[in-house]
Amino acid sequence: MKFDDLKKLHQKKYRQQFGHFLVEGEHLVLELQRALTRGTLASGSVTLYVSERYANFASPFEKVLLNDRQMSQLSDTKSPQGIVALVPLPEAPTTIQPAGKAIYLWQVQDPGNLGTILRTLAWFGGFRCLLSPGSVDPYNPKVVRASMGAIFHVPLELDVPLAALPDRFARIGCLDLHGESVVADNFVAQDCFVFGNEAQGVPREALSAMGASAFTIAGQGAIESLNLASAVNICAYEIQRAQG
Amino acid sequence: MKFDDLKKLHQKKYRQQFGHFLVEGEHLVLELQRALTRGTLASGSVTLYVSERYANFASPFEKVLLNDRQMSQLSDTKSPQGIVALVPLPEAPTTIQPAGKAIYLWQVQDPGNLGTILRTLAWFGGFRCLLSPGSVDPYNPKVVRASMGAIFHVPLELDVPLAALPDRFARIGCLDLHGESVVADNFVAQDCFVFGNEAQGVPREALSAMGASAFTIAGQGAIESLNLASAVNICAYEIQRAQG
Repeated sequence: MKFDDLKKLHQKKYRQQFGHFLVEGEHLVLELQRALTRGTLASGSVTLYVSERYANFASPFEKVLLNDRQMSQLSDTKSPQGIVALVPLPEAPTTIQPAGKAIYLWQVQDPGNLGTILRTLAWFGGFRCLLSPGSVDPYNPKVVRASMGAIFHVPLELDVPLAALPDRFARIGCLDLHGESVVADNFVAQDCFVFGNEAQGVPREALSAMGASAFTIAGQGAIESLNLASAVNICAYEIQRAQG
Repeated sequence: MKFDDLKKLHQKKYRQQFGHFLVEGEHLVLELQRALTRGTLASGSVTLYVSERYANFASPFEKVLLNDRQMSQLSDTKSPQGIVALVPLPEAPTTIQPAGKAIYLWQVQDPGNLGTILRTLAWFGGFRCLLSPGSVDPYNPKVVRASMGAIFHVPLELDVPLAALPDRFARIGCLDLHGESVVADNFVAQDCFVFGNEAQGVPREALSAMGASAFTIAGQGAIESLNLASAVNICAYEIQRAQG
């Protein structure tokens, strides 16, 4: 890819146009190499762009040396780490109904929240993440960074409309301020778990129409709500705990 | 307080010198008023600084009108909301051993993590939060904002040395990558739960010396670690779940 095009990958529309995203920093590149080893990265078509100090970095990927000015243009941060990988966007999953529980996030906005959620889902394993239209792009550099590499390990589906869920999942649960406790046996029996975004819940009419069951994480009411990522973390924990 | 001193409260040393901190935005001010109602706010010695558009804001607090230039100096954000409260720092708890479980955070650095943790602890209730020396100041505007007002509801103790824990707590648990599962009955039996920071665990020698028990949140190993706030969230959930 031409260098001028590489720089454009900080924007979603160019990531989609070129089918690639950027991954910055040694830690994330090492996670990428682990994903390659585990077979969760689609192909070997990764290119590393490195500063002088990473010229001898051991890697199965092709390396291209950049000068400091070029590196700072490619970097998303004020202090470039000196190593950036160009990674192909994963292809959409080919199976309609893969194994594991689905976490559906409705219009998630905060990159840090999405990154933290992916990190938790990767930690527990057995989850995939579905994003509604209007969600933050998971290949946004801030999400990739907050995920600490988990984005290479969690199956993702983008632009999944809420209305498409009933055709794919027999039992749909929704996290709400009112509902059955997540401790109930019925919770883990759901196939897909729907979460509203940072500011508002999922439209109730749509949920009613699809016969979704409402669940809640019981609290004592001192504050209005849990952080979105906290709610997903707790549900993911509860699901894997209940599954034994 | 003089206006020139107010502006200094963005820095920790002045917050400590003047014994006050700033709380910005309508949502946080409303939470502050709820804390007053619930009796968890020490006194009525809160002053509100408002722009013209909040001149008629209904509040039990004394109001001082600021012009836009003054407000932007007082604000921590690029787009000032037009309402900032001056709040006295809470006094240190007077009882040595109050009720509830203690969450001890060792050198927590990220303001967003601490804010999210406080939000979860406030959600569940029955927790207090102890911070080691070298932790981020919880009255830092970023922490206050991320806590969404939870900081007014969770008892806090600052600068608590790790070595002071054994004198105060009979059973100390520590979250680690290796240890007994948090699902075990023994977990909720602990009085104090120790968490390392974002980058490293608590020094093992110190933990061994105090006879702390190690606990772990079981994962599948695709990634190195959980986010700190996620780990605390899950433990707080598990504790309240196990307590029924």
